[in-house]
Amino acid sequence: APVDKGVDFANYFCTYAFLYHQKEMLSDRVRMDAYYNAVFKNKHHFHGQAVLDVGAGSGILAIWSAQAGARKVYAVEATSMAEHARAVVKANNLQDVVEVIEGSMEDVVLPEKVDVIISEWMGYFLLRESMFDSVICARDRWLKPTGVMYPSHATMWVAPIRTGLGDQKNNDYDSSMDDWERFTDETKNYYGVDMSVLTKPFSQEQKKYYLQTSLWNNLHPHQVIGTAASIKEIDCLTASVSDILEVNSNFSSTVTLQNTRLCGYGGWFDVQFRGRKEDPAQEEVELTTAPSVDDSTHWGQQVFLLNPPARITEGDKLNGSFSMKRSKENHRLMEVEFSCEIRQQSGELVPRLVALCSSC
Amino acid sequence: APVDKGVDFANYFCTYAFLYHQKEMLSDRVRMDAYYNAVFKNKHHFHGQAVLDVGAGSGILAIWSAQAGARKVYAVEATSMAEHARAVVKANNLQDVVEVIEGSMEDVVLPEKVDVIISEWMGYFLLRESMFDSVICARDRWLKPTGVMYPSHATMWVAPIRTGLGDQKNNDYDSSMDDWERFTDETKNYYGVDMSVLTKPFSQEQKKYYLQTSLWNNLHPHQVIGTAASIKEIDCLTASVSDILEVNSNFSSTVTLQNTRLCGYGGWFDVQFRGRKEDPAQEEVELTTAPSVDDSTHWGQQVFLLNPPARITEGDKLNGSFSMKRSKENHRLMEVEFSCEIRQQSGELVPRLVALCSSC
Ligand SMILES: Nc1ncnc2c1ncn2[C@@H]1O[C@H](CSCC[C@H](N)C(=O)O)[C@@H](O)[C@H]1O
Ligand SMILES: Nc1ncnc2c1ncn2[C@@H]1O[C@H](CSCC[C@H](N)C(=O)O)[C@@H](O)[C@H]1O
Repeated sequence: APVDKGVDFANYFCTYAFLYHQKEMLSDRVRMDAYYNAVFKNKHHFHGQAVLDVGAGSGILAIWSAQAGARKVYAVEATSMAEHARAVVKANNLQDVVEVIEGSMEDVVLPEKVDVIISEWMGYFLLRESMFDSVICARDRWLKPTGVMYPSHATMWVAPIRTGLGDQKNNDYDSSMDDWERFTDETKNYYGVDMSVLTKPFSQEQKKYYLQTSLWNNLHPHQVIGTAASIKEIDCLTASVSDILEVNSNFSSTVTLQNTRLCGYGGWFDVQFRGRKEDPAQEEVELTTAPSVDDSTHWGQQVFLLNPPARITEGDKLNGSFSMKRSKENHRLMEVEFSCEIRQQSGELVPRLVALCSSC
Repeated sequence: APVDKGVDFANYFCTYAFLYHQKEMLSDRVRMDAYYNAVFKNKHHFHGQAVLDVGAGSGILAIWSAQAGARKVYAVEATSMAEHARAVVKANNLQDVVEVIEGSMEDVVLPEKVDVIISEWMGYFLLRESMFDSVICARDRWLKPTGVMYPSHATMWVAPIRTGLGDQKNNDYDSSMDDWERFTDETKNYYGVDMSVLTKPFSQEQKKYYLQTSLWNNLHPHQVIGTAASIKEIDCLTASVSDILEVNSNFSSTVTLQNTRLCGYGGWFDVQFRGRKEDPAQEEVELTTAPSVDDSTHWGQQVFLLNPPARITEGDKLNGSFSMKRSKENHRLMEVEFSCEIRQQSGELVPRLVALCSSC
């Protein structure tokens, strides 16, 4: 079904029209350092070239591109943030190089093809927001055959984790159900209506909310209890929308900690700035959102809970299968299913469904 | 402009599809008692009659109507909550009387006209959500000329208040601006981009967010420091949409407390169940959301801040003017402007703009 533009604005774009939200991204030092270094350590890609910034927001990437020597930068932004970007461009005296265009990338017409597309399109766990679709659209229409993508590659990762979040959420769920019992009693006693037929759907709704929805979290590296597995690699120069509509992967992971609890999986991503094979980066830069003590990002990691947790130990093998689809109601949200079996070193097999999650 | 149905669902209806949200309303004892008493103390309006429940949610009002003796109840609900309502109706053995219809009131066709329309359509400060439009539409199409509205009347109130919320929000605003200063310094020093041109729009955005948006609050009656004034009265039997598109009122209020601070205005509403002039209630019931120690509701009150507060004292006269319009972007939200002048008993006049607020 085609996407209704009004609905898409209500659900998605509206938040980006706030400076507050742009500031959050601009304050993410790991993100900023990566793009900054990617541009300024690879000025040869920008010098004298035409650049397209897809989803310019405050204009930061367009401005860096211009400062790195671009001849012309087209900065396309769908929301009214475009006006602010224009003001920043002017305040930094780059109005002759950077042209801010307010509009959807899908609708915009440029006067020329470009040598570089730069964009910060990554959502939680990489694909949430489905913004890479717009980058693909821009690439297919406006990138020269010799052009370069910034970033050039992306990878999604999952790893087994331990966390107290599941216990917390189970408590929340339990107390919500206790509350519900009180509620149905009172509705029956005071108001003469029996609502207990809704107990099951309410419990399903609350389970979904508390236990079957992935959670944003800043994991500590110590919480990762096994090897991380890559479940998707994207070459930004060649990937098509059909390549990212779904992610399906069988992966395996070896437990690296003695006698611990498998509480679920953590998911994150990284992107690389490698340039193009025939025109590589002079200095490759990577932006990773993996669990980290010092370099955590606003993306954090997504946590998918296993309920209840399972006891595992060093050397156990986890054979997982992962599937992610776009939600039917909102193509910018994802529906994720995990399942995994635990193959103990002794050889015993413990098959288990881990989680059914919709990011929101 | 006509309302896009998809956008309206994304912005408005979606929350009502959650049992959690319906439960919040069903747990509001003041609300429940009022409707319960309105129905069961006025069974003569229901006995043997046809009833329409506009926006049935869980079906509670439809079920009460049936229990009070209605011959037939049409329970119209736009969201998938309709399925749950149907289950509750069945569990309470009323499936022969209550017919649940999933659909927008605006689109639904009934097989007959009805004697009673019952609905709980009130949003924050009465008109938020603009759901009364749907009740008017139902009334004009489906209520018999002799029919009765439940509720039959509604009134909006404002009163001068004192509150610490303004100080809190001012602190929040100040620290947000401090943070912004640090942010622009860092962006300049580390990343070579001057964002200070955005300081003014950021400050406006944050002022709007913290200080010029009305706040949900459960006021204590002691926080009301002057006489309450009614700014709008609605006769649910005769009001048209054009009557409620805007609310404009000049009102005055006398300060009842010595030497205090005018920190803003509180706004609330009440509705009455009086039946119809020719067919009055046997026992009139009122549902009020005024500040109360024991009988507070999930509606609370809306607080509109005066920034900075003004010193006032007993006997001072506050001449206010109030205007409320629907937001252009979302017809279910309101834009409110207050202004007020303080006429001290000494005769001195202190004109002041109180607040420019958009509820959200
Ligand atoms: N199809 C599209 N066309 C134009 N802008 C889009 C778009 N999809 C997303 N965007 C914009 O892309 C931005 C992504 S956030 C990144 C902002 C900025 N480039 C930075 O790195 O700080 C948002 O401002 C969003 O409004
Ligand atoms: N135009 C419309 N047509 C049908 N349902 C509507 C509607 N506008 C609002 N609603 C529904 O009206 C309900 C209002 S909340 C009240 C629910 C229930 N009558 C109770 O008193 O507990 C919501 O469930 C909302 O989905």
